[in-house]
Amino acid sequence: MPPSGKGKAKEKVPKWDVPTVMKPINKLKQKMEKTGTAKKKTLDDIGMSGVTKEVVAMDTRGVMSEIERIAIQATLSIMRGQGFQYMMPARTSSNMIYVEELDRLVLKDKMLTRVFADASSARKTAITTRVLQIILELCAKGIHVTKRDLFYTDVKLFKQQTESDDVLDDAACMIGCTRSSLNVVASEKGIVVGKIIFDDDGDTIDCTKMGVGGKAIPPSIDRVTNIRGDAEFILLIEKDAAFMRLAEDRFYNQFPCVIISGKGQPDVATRLFLNKVRNALNVPILGLFDADPYGLKILSVYMKGSKNMSYDAINLTTPDIKWLGVRPSDLEKYKIPPQCRLEMSEHDLKTGKELLEEDFIKANPLWHKELEMMVKSKIKAEIQALSSFGFQYLSQVFLPQKLKEADWI
Amino acid sequence: MPPSGKGKAKEKVPKWDVPTVMKPINKLKQKMEKTGTAKKKTLDDIGMSGVTKEVVAMDTRGVMSEIERIAIQATLSIMRGQGFQYMMPARTSSNMIYVEELDRLVLKDKMLTRVFADASSARKTAITTRVLQIILELCAKGIHVTKRDLFYTDVKLFKQQTESDDVLDDAACMIGCTRSSLNVVASEKGIVVGKIIFDDDGDTIDCTKMGVGGKAIPPSIDRVTNIRGDAEFILLIEKDAAFMRLAEDRFYNQFPCVIISGKGQPDVATRLFLNKVRNALNVPILGLFDADPYGLKILSVYMKGSKNMSYDAINLTTPDIKWLGVRPSDLEKYKIPPQCRLEMSEHDLKTGKELLEEDFIKANPLWHKELEMMVKSKIKAEIQALSSFGFQYLSQVFLPQKLKEADWI
Repeated sequence: MPPSGKGKAKEKVPKWDVPTVMKPINKLKQKMEKTGTAKKKTLDDIGMSGVTKEVVAMDTRGVMSEIERIAIQATLSIMRGQGFQYMMPARTSSNMIYVEELDRLVLKDKMLTRVFADASSARKTAITTRVLQIILELCAKGIHVTKRDLFYTDVKLFKQQTESDDVLDDAACMIGCTRSSLNVVASEKGIVVGKIIFDDDGDTIDCTKMGVGGKAIPPSIDRVTNIRGDAEFILLIEKDAAFMRLAEDRFYNQFPCVIISGKGQPDVATRLFLNKVRNALNVPILGLFDADPYGLKILSVYMKGSKNMSYDAINLTTPDIKWLGVRPSDLEKYKIPPQCRLEMSEHDLKTGKELLEEDFIKANPLWHKELEMMVKSKIKAEIQALSSFGFQYLSQVFLPQKLKEADWI
Repeated sequence: MPPSGKGKAKEKVPKWDVPTVMKPINKLKQKMEKTGTAKKKTLDDIGMSGVTKEVVAMDTRGVMSEIERIAIQATLSIMRGQGFQYMMPARTSSNMIYVEELDRLVLKDKMLTRVFADASSARKTAITTRVLQIILELCAKGIHVTKRDLFYTDVKLFKQQTESDDVLDDAACMIGCTRSSLNVVASEKGIVVGKIIFDDDGDTIDCTKMGVGGKAIPPSIDRVTNIRGDAEFILLIEKDAAFMRLAEDRFYNQFPCVIISGKGQPDVATRLFLNKVRNALNVPILGLFDADPYGLKILSVYMKGSKNMSYDAINLTTPDIKWLGVRPSDLEKYKIPPQCRLEMSEHDLKTGKELLEEDFIKANPLWHKELEMMVKSKIKAEIQALSSFGFQYLSQVFLPQKLKEADWI
């Protein structure tokens, strides 16, 4: 068995002229700057009325003074003889509206009153008070906890974690801040590597020096500051296998980029981080996802977020992600061998057909066409299918060629 | 609503005299050194015969020359007229033996012949050949891939990923090396923070400077070298919520330690990393796990590994982990409020009763007693139950007190 791999692989590695490969990305970046799509629009920008003000990232001082304001309001209501009550924006589906200019859901201006004297809402009012008190304590101490920790602070009152979780979102809306501003975070999952440097709680993190493993994206994103670096684009990767390949090959050294993966379904921290990096660097985002309905679903979470958190869509969503691959049309273009193509299950087909009806797919005819092709052919493929051409095909051929040809939609 | 949290918490924070707190740990370390339990015993140490040699971590050169040796053996067999065949240690349960001195399973010396001319094993012989060839290529190029990548290299032959995965373990046994020496890795999951420095693929990683997020444990553990640092113990943590708490409080700065979490069920990389850190630093490991059967199950994976990977038990398992908490007896000792204790489900009870019969629990009477107490009381608790005394109770009270009192078993 001769070690033929080495010789064969060496011949295959194409030489890329980096400036030529990078030209389309630079053009895209210039276009983004010119058309202003690099900066996300706010409700103020479009002067829309009849909607709730979108939440903003606040520092602990801001959150604390808002909680004090809420407490004073409640006290005044009692003194007026109207009883102990809170006012908050309604987070129901009927109070949401899709704003096309912003390309995201926002809350309309319907307010909800939570009354302590009403038997049906007495407990929820008590929970709200307790949650606000805990947030105040967290902000005063400057520490972060998980939702689970918060639940355990008063199991007797909260009973179920879903109850404290739900009120936590209410609290964010009442205060008008993002959920991470409340110092309550989700567990971490995402990883990052590449031409980017940031400060995490005072430590300087240079993501070119994170070995093959990359840096875990911190759960408390508000402590991530001073993001800088030479990256000219962000490569957003669905799964960690492809992330690992690119990290090991130090892809970012040849083609300056930041590589981010949420390892499947992304958590809140990864989505906030992606958004924060994009705002800091003002560079395009290219997505590398499986050519299956699940890959597109995950892409949609990055772009559109979930309905439940739509009050914070401005910070959680990143609308202008370009779909680089692996796209259904790539299977023919790159001649992916038949045995690496997988048949779609009934469930896949159902998900695919549902996606065809979604606004965000319909809004982009090229995406719609790709998805149609997938559903019609009943064939899907994973990013790893590219391994059939050699393990480094992804970093040495597929991605540079995609970049050079501006082959994203 | 007064910001009472701050004042109250400040009064509560106890002052710890660090040398006093650390004394029991230092004693434990000295004891480990004296009794030689710090170094793991090998089959050679106890002079056992009738068993397969345990696999060792090999560099790529070693793996390649072993594959060449295997290929030559196969060729010689053909030339002798005995046909194309491979010999390998049988990895069946009947060929495993529990060695008490080593406190782990090892393979007995039964060998298996895989014959190409036999219709029932022709395909498996072909798969073995292909897998060996791919490993040779990976080693020659010095790159790492996931099992999924490997599967996609020849979907037509492998058909199912379980088939290539299975033969991968065969290959490791044939070569006599660990699975990570084959440059095939699992996806990463674990995180680390604290008083430890190591090199990852040439980058120096200082885990005191990893912010709150910590460093992702790299999937290719063989690239982790030159482990050093002032840590005096390893704190092994079941879940990332508690990890995050300790990372944010910089617990390791006050009490010099390394904090490692596999985020629930640990992957191979985390288990290898834990083992590697322990061998490099020669310090005790203290485990912080939920007081429920699932927590103990996870602890057992760190200590005993899985049957499937028992051929590599020497590198994957870490037998001498001390159970620090949260133990069933802690619920009374620390007066965990009733509302933070959870009732065990039928499934929990079943798992608990099964664990009572396991050798590794029986081998430690104190563990057995704790588990008995749990099953009898039908009560479990999570680490987060400690949050009911304040979010920083874990780092400021519970852990220092445990350390000071040498309260581990």
